[in-house]
Amino acid sequence: MMHNNRWVKKVTLPPPSLGDNTADADRLAAALKKSLGIRTVHMDLALLKQLPARLREWNFRATAVWFKDDGGNGILAHLAAPDTADTLCGLAVDLGTTRVVLRIIDLSTGAHLGESVFDNPQITVGPDVLARIHHVEKPDGLNRLNRLIVDGINDALKVLCDGCGISRANIHLMSVAGNTAMTHLLIGLNPRWMIREPYIPAVNRPGVITAAELGIHVHPTARALIFPNVGSYFGGDLIAGILYCDMDQRDETAILVDVGTNAEVVLGNRKWMMACAGAAGPALEGGVTRMGTMAGPGVIDRIAIDPDSMAVDIHTIDNQPPRGICGSGVIDLAAALFRSGMIDIRGKLLPDRCGDRFKLKDGLGHLTLVTADQSATGQDLGVTQADLDSLVRSKAAMYTILETITGSVGMQQQNLETFFVAGTFGAYIDPASAITIGMIPDLPLARYHSLGNSSLGGATRVLENPECFDRVNQIRDGITYLELNVNQDFMNRFSAAKFLPHTDTSRFPSVRWPDGR
Amino acid sequence: MMHNNRWVKKVTLPPPSLGDNTADADRLAAALKKSLGIRTVHMDLALLKQLPARLREWNFRATAVWFKDDGGNGILAHLAAPDTADTLCGLAVDLGTTRVVLRIIDLSTGAHLGESVFDNPQITVGPDVLARIHHVEKPDGLNRLNRLIVDGINDALKVLCDGCGISRANIHLMSVAGNTAMTHLLIGLNPRWMIREPYIPAVNRPGVITAAELGIHVHPTARALIFPNVGSYFGGDLIAGILYCDMDQRDETAILVDVGTNAEVVLGNRKWMMACAGAAGPALEGGVTRMGTMAGPGVIDRIAIDPDSMAVDIHTIDNQPPRGICGSGVIDLAAALFRSGMIDIRGKLLPDRCGDRFKLKDGLGHLTLVTADQSATGQDLGVTQADLDSLVRSKAAMYTILETITGSVGMQQQNLETFFVAGTFGAYIDPASAITIGMIPDLPLARYHSLGNSSLGGATRVLENPECFDRVNQIRDGITYLELNVNQDFMNRFSAAKFLPHTDTSRFPSVRWPDGR
Repeated sequence: MMHNNRWVKKVTLPPPSLGDNTADADRLAAALKKSLGIRTVHMDLALLKQLPARLREWNFRATAVWFKDDGGNGILAHLAAPDTADTLCGLAVDLGTTRVVLRIIDLSTGAHLGESVFDNPQITVGPDVLARIHHVEKPDGLNRLNRLIVDGINDALKVLCDGCGISRANIHLMSVAGNTAMTHLLIGLNPRWMIREPYIPAVNRPGVITAAELGIHVHPTARALIFPNVGSYFGGDLIAGILYCDMDQRDETAILVDVGTNAEVVLGNRKWMMACAGAAGPALEGGVTRMGTMAGPGVIDRIAIDPDSMAVDIHTIDNQPPRGICGSGVIDLAAALFRSGMIDIRGKLLPDRCGDRFKLKDGLGHLTLVTADQSATGQDLGVTQADLDSLVRSKAAMYTILETITGSVGMQQQNLETFFVAGTFGAYIDPASAITIGMIPDLPLARYHSLGNSSLGGATRVLENPECFDRVNQIRDGITYLELNVNQDFMNRFSAAKFLPHTDTSRFPSVRWPDGR
Repeated sequence: MMHNNRWVKKVTLPPPSLGDNTADADRLAAALKKSLGIRTVHMDLALLKQLPARLREWNFRATAVWFKDDGGNGILAHLAAPDTADTLCGLAVDLGTTRVVLRIIDLSTGAHLGESVFDNPQITVGPDVLARIHHVEKPDGLNRLNRLIVDGINDALKVLCDGCGISRANIHLMSVAGNTAMTHLLIGLNPRWMIREPYIPAVNRPGVITAAELGIHVHPTARALIFPNVGSYFGGDLIAGILYCDMDQRDETAILVDVGTNAEVVLGNRKWMMACAGAAGPALEGGVTRMGTMAGPGVIDRIAIDPDSMAVDIHTIDNQPPRGICGSGVIDLAAALFRSGMIDIRGKLLPDRCGDRFKLKDGLGHLTLVTADQSATGQDLGVTQADLDSLVRSKAAMYTILETITGSVGMQQQNLETFFVAGTFGAYIDPASAITIGMIPDLPLARYHSLGNSSLGGATRVLENPECFDRVNQIRDGITYLELNVNQDFMNRFSAAKFLPHTDTSRFPSVRWPDGR
């Protein structure tokens, strides 16, 4: 199998003669098959109709934009002049529940030409996956959700293309990585059975679809790879993440954790991969990171507390006056409170240590971090005991999931050489804080790697390199999905993890104890 | 590889469970792959969107109409209830230059539900392939030709479906066999380069196209196999003919001759096939059967002459008053004239033997068969010396082509065990007459087999049996096309064949000579 490292290929055909009267399409297909090492080449009628005139105009030379389908068959997505001045582009899409990111790639060079981020317009229907899936039960609900995201992409794409100085018709290939529900809504598939036992998506491998069928306004013969999913709770964004961090090609066993509303975890190497997703079970319904505000200017993302003076040092995004606290800030806060002895190992606020900052309102403890006169909202900013309890459950769920998945393959957590943290949230988490509260294992910090937007990264790689395309389904098919069985054993581990950092303190030797233990 | 002998398949899926959470589409695909022995299964978005609700409504049982693409990938063309009362149909099309034949097939049983014949509406643009190809140079010419045939099929299909008591939406599969030019015009491909050296079609293997793309009004997700061609002059109608007579599966070497304006010939068996097409070269430009009227009521199709009394016995189609003579009639006539000594071995009218029937007009000999008072036209009916000269050139071309193709594989014509004659024209030819004039070899008559409409027959078989689908491309790819090289050697053979039956009379031992030789 020959490999080509781009989706753009210059071809020169032997000109037809009386002794070689193969038809135009078959002549082009033969040349592409030979030079690309593929078995078949499909071309749309629209392209076929132009072919004879074009090949003669171009003296039997051309620039081909090719792609593949799910079965490995070649597709001719576009044919341009051999010396075309057009930029032949691809569009990578990170289809997030909250945010959508578009990236334009020059398919010839792999250069990134531009990027655009916008809120998923489906937020107007519901903030999270569950609310949107429920919305499909309403009249025209599915169609409305589908239109919202398709229109949203089309609108943002127009602005992005203008900014890059290209036309939308310059886009010939797309790749879309998103969770299973968002992917279904983009394609227009009903996700209702995903949230009903036994939790079945409409499709695991949507494969390659024409952009026209998706309703995306790019070149009429453009193709879109929709990343496959492993199930309702393990989506294409994760497959893209695995591709992006090359877990499927590594000799050493790595772990990839995507912390969103759920935690999705993959453990593996080039020989095997094991995956699971939580929040699992009724105790964990709040999800892993339910607490906190969405990141944005003025949101507290870093907190330190001097254990001696109890002085609180906060950092806000863009250094704006504080107006809330985001998930990474809450983890920092919990770690700081624990280190300074302001909460106990159950995460309970200790009024004696908290001093003036502590108040009891309606029987619920409140800790003030920023007083009303210094906050952007004109109100005290802080956390409640309920917030902290929620964090403790979340961190315990995260840790238990990690313990369960490593345990399922007979591996010790401390033997994890490479720990990838994916997602926007992951990019902000301070691993030291997360270790302090026992959310993640007590590994040397150098083993933690923040991947940033690995969903977009994986989607991009598919457009940069045909070999990465082939890996997408290999990754999907290579994953063993571990159904989290919330049995007594799991609940015992969960209970042990509900302490800071853990009932078994020997697992967290690096954590400095407030009371000097 | 498992085989299934129909395109309709009942499937029962294992219902999803917590322990088997494969998505709906992938579950269905897995079941189809397993039971059909195919590698991949594509389904259109329109179908995918309905899938989850349908599968649950039907309790994970269904009736699938499947097909394949050119690369052997499976396609789900339709999904119906497990106990559907709908008749699941296919449409076979013989796309002739002159006539188009439609046939509806019940895909479940293979039963033929109805048939419809209509004149190719492109005749209004031009009577033959060449005129139509020239028409594409005119503004909107290609589009007009394309609309004519697409509308023609749609109109005839509506009437046919009404007659069969089915809806056009009951049609899920199509197969279309036609010559290369007609196929191009149906798809909307420009055939202009087919008639310009080096005579290159736009495509050899159009493969499987959606009926919607063709503009044919059947079920929206229906698929159409367009029979492949070997070149501009050897089309899908011949591939269908080979399939229909099973040449590609026979141990003995057979020959298939389709006599239309051109003669197309295939010689072969299950191990190899050799094909060629003529009229070849400038001497043969008139084609093989240019002479004669199209068959129809009142047209003379059989002629006998009593060698003693010179009485002419004619037969007309439907026994109507004579109004012309068709190709098979001309061959019968020439044989009769030769047997009765009214023409010589060069095909020249012998005035002495023709008597009153012979007249010289403007220096050109005329032979009257039916006098004005007995003809439907009110004019004398007969042939001229020019008609006979044309016939002699045509029969010589036919014979030379047969001699050339058998010679190319080192075979003696008399060793041909099976001689298939295809096409409407072939159905009317009397082999004894054709042998008498030396148009075809002097084989025992039992070796001649008229296939009738083998193009329609082959198109039908593809819809009756998936194995036949697989054979279509195997046949195409297995054919060696012999480019008729009109060199001195060919012209020598042609000259020798311009005598009745041949200069080498030993080749025609069965022919009874007029002068008793």
